[in-house]
Amino acid sequence: MTTTLVKNLYRETEKFTGKEVQVSGWIRTVRDSKTFGFIELNDGSFFKNVQIVFDEKLDNFKEITKLSVSSSIVVNGVLELTPQAKQPFEIKATKIEIHGTSSPDFPLQKKKHSFEYLRTIAHLRPRSNTFSAVFRVRSVAAYAIHKFFQERGFVYVHTPIITGSDCEGAGEMFRVTTLDLNDVPRTEEGKVDTSKDFFGKETNLTVSGQLNGEAYALALRNIYTFGPTFRAENSHTARHAAEFWMIEPEMAFAELEDYMDIAEEMVKYIITYVMENCPEEMEFFNTFIEPNLFDKLNNVANSDFARITYTEAVEILKKSGVEFQYPVEWGIDLQTEHERYITEQVFKKPVFVTNYPKDIKAFYMRLNDDGKTVAAADLLVPGIGEIIGGSQREERLDVLESRINEMGLKKEDYWWYLELRKYGGTKHAGYGLGFERILMYLTGMTNIRDVIPFPRTAGTAEF
Amino acid sequence: MTTTLVKNLYRETEKFTGKEVQVSGWIRTVRDSKTFGFIELNDGSFFKNVQIVFDEKLDNFKEITKLSVSSSIVVNGVLELTPQAKQPFEIKATKIEIHGTSSPDFPLQKKKHSFEYLRTIAHLRPRSNTFSAVFRVRSVAAYAIHKFFQERGFVYVHTPIITGSDCEGAGEMFRVTTLDLNDVPRTEEGKVDTSKDFFGKETNLTVSGQLNGEAYALALRNIYTFGPTFRAENSHTARHAAEFWMIEPEMAFAELEDYMDIAEEMVKYIITYVMENCPEEMEFFNTFIEPNLFDKLNNVANSDFARITYTEAVEILKKSGVEFQYPVEWGIDLQTEHERYITEQVFKKPVFVTNYPKDIKAFYMRLNDDGKTVAAADLLVPGIGEIIGGSQREERLDVLESRINEMGLKKEDYWWYLELRKYGGTKHAGYGLGFERILMYLTGMTNIRDVIPFPRTAGTAEF
Repeated sequence: MTTTLVKNLYRETEKFTGKEVQVSGWIRTVRDSKTFGFIELNDGSFFKNVQIVFDEKLDNFKEITKLSVSSSIVVNGVLELTPQAKQPFEIKATKIEIHGTSSPDFPLQKKKHSFEYLRTIAHLRPRSNTFSAVFRVRSVAAYAIHKFFQERGFVYVHTPIITGSDCEGAGEMFRVTTLDLNDVPRTEEGKVDTSKDFFGKETNLTVSGQLNGEAYALALRNIYTFGPTFRAENSHTARHAAEFWMIEPEMAFAELEDYMDIAEEMVKYIITYVMENCPEEMEFFNTFIEPNLFDKLNNVANSDFARITYTEAVEILKKSGVEFQYPVEWGIDLQTEHERYITEQVFKKPVFVTNYPKDIKAFYMRLNDDGKTVAAADLLVPGIGEIIGGSQREERLDVLESRINEMGLKKEDYWWYLELRKYGGTKHAGYGLGFERILMYLTGMTNIRDVIPFPRTAGTAEF
Repeated sequence: MTTTLVKNLYRETEKFTGKEVQVSGWIRTVRDSKTFGFIELNDGSFFKNVQIVFDEKLDNFKEITKLSVSSSIVVNGVLELTPQAKQPFEIKATKIEIHGTSSPDFPLQKKKHSFEYLRTIAHLRPRSNTFSAVFRVRSVAAYAIHKFFQERGFVYVHTPIITGSDCEGAGEMFRVTTLDLNDVPRTEEGKVDTSKDFFGKETNLTVSGQLNGEAYALALRNIYTFGPTFRAENSHTARHAAEFWMIEPEMAFAELEDYMDIAEEMVKYIITYVMENCPEEMEFFNTFIEPNLFDKLNNVANSDFARITYTEAVEILKKSGVEFQYPVEWGIDLQTEHERYITEQVFKKPVFVTNYPKDIKAFYMRLNDDGKTVAAADLLVPGIGEIIGGSQREERLDVLESRINEMGLKKEDYWWYLELRKYGGTKHAGYGLGFERILMYLTGMTNIRDVIPFPRTAGTAEF
């Protein structure tokens, strides 16, 4: 007999009512009285469990009543509706086969564990309600992103993870090497002889695929990346991981407004797709993880995002009368407290802040005609602050070169990036979305370690 | 006026016939006589170019005739059908705006360049026919894989890239470190003091997400990974890269047959999806890259894959009378020459070879009752040999432990992997597909460097 997934039993209950079905999965709970018992079974395909009713007519009744949590079984039985009960149906077992017993010391017992503790059993935590929901949403959200871009003709580009250039400039990097650290080869001058390393030079883990992505946008027009990126920052906050996934779309023949249009559309699409495709998981988050999660997400999905300039934002903040921890002056980098004030208190919906001072932004952002701001835009959302950063890119070779000089960077390091402008440069724009950041927003989980299957943070690379 | 993508002009030509449209893109060629000229324009959205006709009525006629290849322009004009010409329609320009000029030394001129040369301009090669086709197919094939698994309820899991365990055992690894190689900290015994490293221990780049994937399959049932993996092998063949992408599905309550069923379905799905969604690109490959590509792919898509045991394969090879470079004996690892003989000469279609000797396979593969073979299966395809490797996994804790001992590995290194068996282990199976390998198969490209946007191989990490 073929096994039916529990998800299908829930989605097409009518089809199976009164029929014999087979399900298989892991026991969440077993209760029994002398002659019969109940099992809550989770088969991994669905957030909810299915209730199995079994009785002493089964040969192995005694054995079943003694099964520990997380034992795996295969059940044959008849699906019966249970309109009086809290679950819509149950399976009356005619046969229960024990596949793998569990040990009584299984650490995920019914009692509630702290998320901190569950991180120490990252190999088992997806068997809990919270984490099965988180990681199913992670998968569905990732797919929503692919679907969104593919349906719009964007080409998915795998930009390199190992990078030979240290000129991405977005943060501290991890070195990648095959040199023997016990006996590092030296040049005659006593320096590390990187010519002996695997790639014949120093290499690091990427912090951004953007520059490579631009090369592809200037050939295939609309592209996106979706891959892991790395920061070797010794940070111990709940929002930073050393390894995380980023989405970096890049569009040719596009200006700042085009980036904001597509980013707004994308954020709404992801929310809507996940709400529609993970209703049980989202209901759980709304009830147990973040009260009013639905209100927050619906507000984002149904708002027209506001758009104000950085200069306007600074004025709003100055006039607010609020005493911020970081005082506000034109020229400062906005802090989370400022961002949240603007999006939560002033606009009460997502806000793009545009045209930041050039000195606080990267060299590749397009210089505005005022000579002091760049065509950058950050998207701020209630409850979190910045969630997306992007810009129009500098397409004018001469301006880009003088920005590189100004910033004390070396032109030679950017030879191919500059050539993109030499051979038919066009206006283009792009942005970056930290995948974990949107997952935290979608689920209400407040620690980045709890939305990554096996998180890597300063001091921790277990499993 | 809004820009229309060239793809849409081709897909919905009727809708635009006789209408004014705007297109933008990069010039592939310009030809002109005294009073009029033709531009082949590619806008990146589509494999084919659109022909622009322009004449001296345009103010900037002279300037346009002098544009170098790869200059970017925005064209307004009327779309007219050209039933007599080789292209189905052209655009009679009413206005051409020059966005970015190109330099006459643009390296991708009409003349044919070697793929070797094009690798040295990896930032520009996606502007060529071949590479725009390769990388559009790469994107569509990646999406086909996500779509296939998502539609079947598989959960996409991001397994870690940085790994703290060196026990994956699939090959040489890259070390990831923030230690200063000029001044490596030492312990009192003079060894590298890894406690001072970023993660407090030695870390490397992953060679496989499988073990982590199993943890998720034993919670969420059916999962897949799709991410970058790494090999620090000093190999200079056309088939090996240091950085490549892998797909690793893993299924709980599944046996060897289940893996073969889903893998067969997946391979056929990818081929069919790419043929349907990239007809122009595939036509190009079939004509210019691999003659009879379509025959090869159709044969795979329409065959029932054969299934034979390793023992049967060895007998077939021995009886073949063929003098192989590597002589055949029961117990040897099959070489590409053997694999290709079986799939190309004997079966003339894809073949799963099952139940390999345990000594040539990994410790986690399930031991068969004969005590000398394991429930592994490799998929061999005509033209290439092995394209997928997989197995049922050893779910029996005691057998797994003794296999670990037998192989001289340390149980402590696998504590969490063993716990997956302790707490409700189930039969489960999975496999690995090298993404680049299937791309080479789909496109006919014979060098892995030509299906990766910015390839990383021994000695090379440019761009």
